[in-house]
Amino acid sequence: MQGRRLQHKQTADAWSTDGVDLRPNLTIRINLGEYGSLGPGKIALMEHISKCGSITSAGKEMGMSYRRAWLLVDEINHMFREPLVEKQLGGAGGGVARLPNLARDVVARYGAIEAAAAMASLPDFGPLKVSLPAKPPTRSGA
Amino acid sequence: MQGRRLQHKQTADAWSTDGVDLRPNLTIRINLGEYGSLGPGKIALMEHISKCGSITSAGKEMGMSYRRAWLLVDEINHMFREPLVEKQLGGAGGGVARLPNLARDVVARYGAIEAAAAMASLPDFGPLKVSLPAKPPTRSGA
Repeated sequence: MQGRRLQHKQTADAWSTDGVDLRPNLTIRINLGEYGSLGPGKIALMEHISKCGSITSAGKEMGMSYRRAWLLVDEINHMFREPLVEKQLGGAGGGVARLPNLARDVVARYGAIEAAAAMASLPDFGPLKVSLPAKPPTRSGA
Repeated sequence: MQGRRLQHKQTADAWSTDGVDLRPNLTIRINLGEYGSLGPGKIALMEHISKCGSITSAGKEMGMSYRRAWLLVDEINHMFREPLVEKQLGGAGGGVARLPNLARDVVARYGAIEAAAAMASLPDFGPLKVSLPAKPPTRSGA
């Protein structure tokens, strides 16, 4: 997924030992079985829609194609009891979109799960990080 | 990623209310910046290698191509201070592979992070699940 999200501000203080950044950085996907899944891409798209007020502009800001943004919104809108993106079609520029309360709640809960998971991973994240070599590997393609 | 992992046995008790399975189901990817990332695919491959004693058999069991399995192992082996998959080449069937202690530690820590994240997500996972409709959406392709 493109659209990287800003990482947990609340843990962004002094997580550095000997130049190694020990801050946990997890990507979380919430699996809802046959209902689909919620990951950073859909959540970031909803956040951008909330900010831009338009699906097309939100997709554009994320470097996503028009088609991809609308397909994702279609998927998001069929997952929950109500559509998470309210579209008001018509007008210049492809219409206005906004997030109803349920969508704001879903985005907030995703963020809460992300933050709680990062905190919960602390005891194991540090030892993983210190097992890394001093320099990152040089990628040989693939 | 293919290779689905068995979900947190320790939370697999009575997570059902009105037929809705409220057990958290998260997919976790641990991002290690320029060192790469550790997700369910690489972890499952290491678990299968540990069980099968061979990269080729492990990949086969996971429905992964020979090439994909070896590329993933190559990536895994350049992430940490030491290779996580020890290859002993030669012999019939492509040689033997095993996980050294560091690899066992990494796999265990990934599992611990997965379980801790699932527990930490509980307060928000339930409300998300009850916001789902009674029936999953019918997929129209895409």
